[in-house]
Amino acid sequence: MHKEILEDIGEKELIIRLGKFMPKNQVSDDCALIKTKNKNLLVNTDSLVENVHFNETIICPQDLGWKAVVSNISDLLSSGSKKTIGITISLVLPSRTEWIWVEELYKGINKALKEYGGKILGGDCSKGDEKIISITAFGIQGELELRRNACKPGDIILTTGIHGLSKLGFMIKNKINFDNDVYLHETLIRKSIKQFCRPKVYPDFLKQLLKTRSNKKMKRIGCTDSSDGLFQAIQDLAIASSCKAIMNYEKIPKDKHWPQGDKWDEHYFFGGEDYELVFSLPKKWANNLYKLDKNIYKIGYFANGEPSIEFKDKNKNKLLKNTPFKHF
Amino acid sequence: MHKEILEDIGEKELIIRLGKFMPKNQVSDDCALIKTKNKNLLVNTDSLVENVHFNETIICPQDLGWKAVVSNISDLLSSGSKKTIGITISLVLPSRTEWIWVEELYKGINKALKEYGGKILGGDCSKGDEKIISITAFGIQGELELRRNACKPGDIILTTGIHGLSKLGFMIKNKINFDNDVYLHETLIRKSIKQFCRPKVYPDFLKQLLKTRSNKKMKRIGCTDSSDGLFQAIQDLAIASSCKAIMNYEKIPKDKHWPQGDKWDEHYFFGGEDYELVFSLPKKWANNLYKLDKNIYKIGYFANGEPSIEFKDKNKNKLLKNTPFKHF
Repeated sequence: MHKEILEDIGEKELIIRLGKFMPKNQVSDDCALIKTKNKNLLVNTDSLVENVHFNETIICPQDLGWKAVVSNISDLLSSGSKKTIGITISLVLPSRTEWIWVEELYKGINKALKEYGGKILGGDCSKGDEKIISITAFGIQGELELRRNACKPGDIILTTGIHGLSKLGFMIKNKINFDNDVYLHETLIRKSIKQFCRPKVYPDFLKQLLKTRSNKKMKRIGCTDSSDGLFQAIQDLAIASSCKAIMNYEKIPKDKHWPQGDKWDEHYFFGGEDYELVFSLPKKWANNLYKLDKNIYKIGYFANGEPSIEFKDKNKNKLLKNTPFKHF
Repeated sequence: MHKEILEDIGEKELIIRLGKFMPKNQVSDDCALIKTKNKNLLVNTDSLVENVHFNETIICPQDLGWKAVVSNISDLLSSGSKKTIGITISLVLPSRTEWIWVEELYKGINKALKEYGGKILGGDCSKGDEKIISITAFGIQGELELRRNACKPGDIILTTGIHGLSKLGFMIKNKINFDNDVYLHETLIRKSIKQFCRPKVYPDFLKQLLKTRSNKKMKRIGCTDSSDGLFQAIQDLAIASSCKAIMNYEKIPKDKHWPQGDKWDEHYFFGGEDYELVFSLPKKWANNLYKLDKNIYKIGYFANGEPSIEFKDKNKNKLLKNTPFKHF
């Protein structure tokens, strides 16, 4: 079958086709316009570069579109966004890109927006040697300011769910060989691929926090997401808040089929792209939320001390040494 | 001399150093916050990717920082921004990047913001295989809506200045061989390199438009910038507005030392990165502005017809055929 590529379509027709996904005429304009009504905006940009952040053999364009939106919304939620206004999309695409690829990407983008709210506010598309998808997402700052630097010694560390699944999904998609003696349960395989391709976020997180707040004066919460892995999230909180994190290995929730062993712990803690929220609350608030929401886990606490991570069970501290624990 | 690279510095120290360029604690947070007061925002994102949009042999980091900001502000101005609020900066950098490179980039960014207004609102930095600089710029929509689709048949086509210089600067920086029989004047060489490294924009453009408006009811103006070249800008206006552009070759301003010949016309018309404004106005308004501002040139007019470009002097139409005149 003949596959239609952008070069065949030409710019004029491309603008018309992209226009279907945009507010009227936006694809042909230089800027997007946001009408604000005296609200404070949260803004987040993420760029996905082909062969750096994704490649076509492991993720289809529809999943990529979904994921690009979700990773941005996750950042908004982890800052306390009460509503996603919308996104702008900046695409760089090689001439040989098939139109169907673009259409599928937008399908994924629109599915995520339908699920979590927000509109496409604008976008542009230009030619380049490799595919780049830059999404900028806009949200409205809610009543609570969720910030990385707002954790306090004494706070309980919590998370919204299970980690490592996306990394496992990535490895399965990459056909990475596992040890022969590891049996991967079919349910785990299915879940992991789903987590890698269609991660979810928690749009009701802020509401749950407000519902369980024990003291109306508390307005700042330490929070980030686990887009770069659970350990990275905790390290980011510890550094920004100048606290020491004490983790309780036994309380960290794993999938019931997750294999045992140090290597699997590494995948769990350093995996990334699970988009769970990692945050800290004063004890009373933490307990209220924990009781209300069965997807919330208490996994440790913050203490005074040099920004760092330690396990209560000292045996587990070797986990921190196994992997180069840094961004650069 | 030992050069300090990001890998040596480590993440903690890097966050502290980047913090110097940011509002308090922003570098460690997931989102940027924009306080709006019932104003409509214009938003623009541009991503510069190493070896696609720039490479280190032809542009130094300080110039790159300047240019990244200016290209965004140019898009805001060409949409009718009356004030640049600020920018967010998203960096992807390889571990081997030297700290001095980052510092120089920010120097350039800050110089451009000092010149044209706006603050750094936030940013983040993560590791990647190649350098990517994504800047999102925010401006306040002024009284006139400048849009690509607002040109009308009968409008005069105008531009704020001379084109082609940036392309020549790029070629000189790339040590591209010119024909032996072409003599490049020293002033032209100096100007071209400056235009390539430190392009300027027109922050007073909107004020000049308002000052010369002949009818207060006119609120929409056809406009874009020449970031992708003069012909591309005119084509974008023609397509978005469904008009035919008739260009007057004799009236198109060239540098007095610009060499003659078809090849040099091509560099002029298809060069890009000059960031001049290309726009259209009703005759009376165009004349008022032309009289007020000596940097404004009348270069043609829009007529009814298929979206396209034609020269009044038919001999010049070959120019349009010499180069593949399309984005994809």
